[in-house]
Amino acid sequence: MMIEGTHFLAGQDIADVAWKLVAVNLSDLAAKGAEPLGVLLGYALGGDDARFAEGLAEACAAFGVPLLGGDTVRGMGPRSFGLTALGRASHAPVPDRRGARAGDAIYVTGALGAAMLGFEALRDGTGADSLAYRRPRPLLAEGRALAPVVSAMMDVSDGLLLDCWRMARASQVTFRLHGTAIPVAATARRAECLRWGDDYQLLFTAPADRPLPIAAARIGSVEARGRAPLCLDGDWLNDPDRLGYQH
Amino acid sequence: MMIEGTHFLAGQDIADVAWKLVAVNLSDLAAKGAEPLGVLLGYALGGDDARFAEGLAEACAAFGVPLLGGDTVRGMGPRSFGLTALGRASHAPVPDRRGARAGDAIYVTGALGAAMLGFEALRDGTGADSLAYRRPRPLLAEGRALAPVVSAMMDVSDGLLLDCWRMARASQVTFRLHGTAIPVAATARRAECLRWGDDYQLLFTAPADRPLPIAAARIGSVEARGRAPLCLDGDWLNDPDRLGYQH
Repeated sequence: MMIEGTHFLAGQDIADVAWKLVAVNLSDLAAKGAEPLGVLLGYALGGDDARFAEGLAEACAAFGVPLLGGDTVRGMGPRSFGLTALGRASHAPVPDRRGARAGDAIYVTGALGAAMLGFEALRDGTGADSLAYRRPRPLLAEGRALAPVVSAMMDVSDGLLLDCWRMARASQVTFRLHGTAIPVAATARRAECLRWGDDYQLLFTAPADRPLPIAAARIGSVEARGRAPLCLDGDWLNDPDRLGYQH
Repeated sequence: MMIEGTHFLAGQDIADVAWKLVAVNLSDLAAKGAEPLGVLLGYALGGDDARFAEGLAEACAAFGVPLLGGDTVRGMGPRSFGLTALGRASHAPVPDRRGARAGDAIYVTGALGAAMLGFEALRDGTGADSLAYRRPRPLLAEGRALAPVVSAMMDVSDGLLLDCWRMARASQVTFRLHGTAIPVAATARRAECLRWGDDYQLLFTAPADRPLPIAAARIGSVEARGRAPLCLDGDWLNDPDRLGYQH
């Protein structure tokens, strides 16, 4: 669900909003190793419906998913959009966030913070590349390749540290992370990059000696539960409000 | 999708809104003869989340469907809720609104206008029964029983006349309706009852000589396409804006 003012800027190109609505839902399927079958849209009508439809069509074409149906409504005030993506699991058991085990290695598929830089470029009108924020790409092929290999998997939508904390807590273990091993889009702003969401990389764990079918950065190790779910460079972190975007 | 101010009154019991959100989506499944498998909710948080959860739980229990997942968001302004109901077709071909054929009879499962009376009771605080408006019941068992028998089926959500017009147009035929044969909740206000939505009765067509598995009112006959999709007591009706709730 995306609400004007909360999930997108009022003046933002509504085609980008449509794209993102599709992409972030497909990212949830990617984290399950699922093949997308189609999407259902709940759409609040506005003055820019044609432009929304363009972005929606572009996203559906890019990711090979049909728009199956949905609902259109009229309302007052900030607009809201809802999308449900349907998919079919490609591997059983379906990966979730509860399966990380002591001895596993922790991985992430790519750099964090690219969406943050894109957001700032858009907000400040610098002309710098904002594609990572406006048009994220769900890692569908990567998720399917990883599903048979991982012990736990989720997409990083609310910040790497927060999502690591959640996965560690759900798995009743501790994630020990090595800060400099975590790929970021802006090394001078590492702490922010680790707390910004919207990148839609995949975070996963797997037995440390298991070969991976795709490239990924090894960012830490899973240990038996210690003082807190998360330990970054020796610091125990246990306040989720300081780790990322809570909603 | 339901938006505050458009689909429900600002002061309305939010438990009723939750119930209705489930019920109207399951009604779409009923019209397809489908068995519901579960629902996914997009929920804008507010101050009455516990009360919403109560109504949601009551509806899910009443209709035997689990809440499978969804999304919660924060936003400003009028609240919006989206729900996707998943179901499995019980009969192929799945009924739709395009299959009405000349010679078919037209049926509706029950009285129209009950929701109108309920809405007015609630709005005016008369203390009269408002259950039909607040807590509609999707006709799931009826829809499944009818699916193998009907030539076309849909639920009446926007007014009987408008939905008849739509079904006739989609089937490229004319629906000839007999006004007095149409069951209404308030005979003195027949014209309004035929134009008010929210009753969630099932409208369907079937060959005139085919026995029906449930009780239904026969309200007219399907003819080859004439001057307009709809003819009520000899009057040709072709202005959808005057037939029901357009959105």
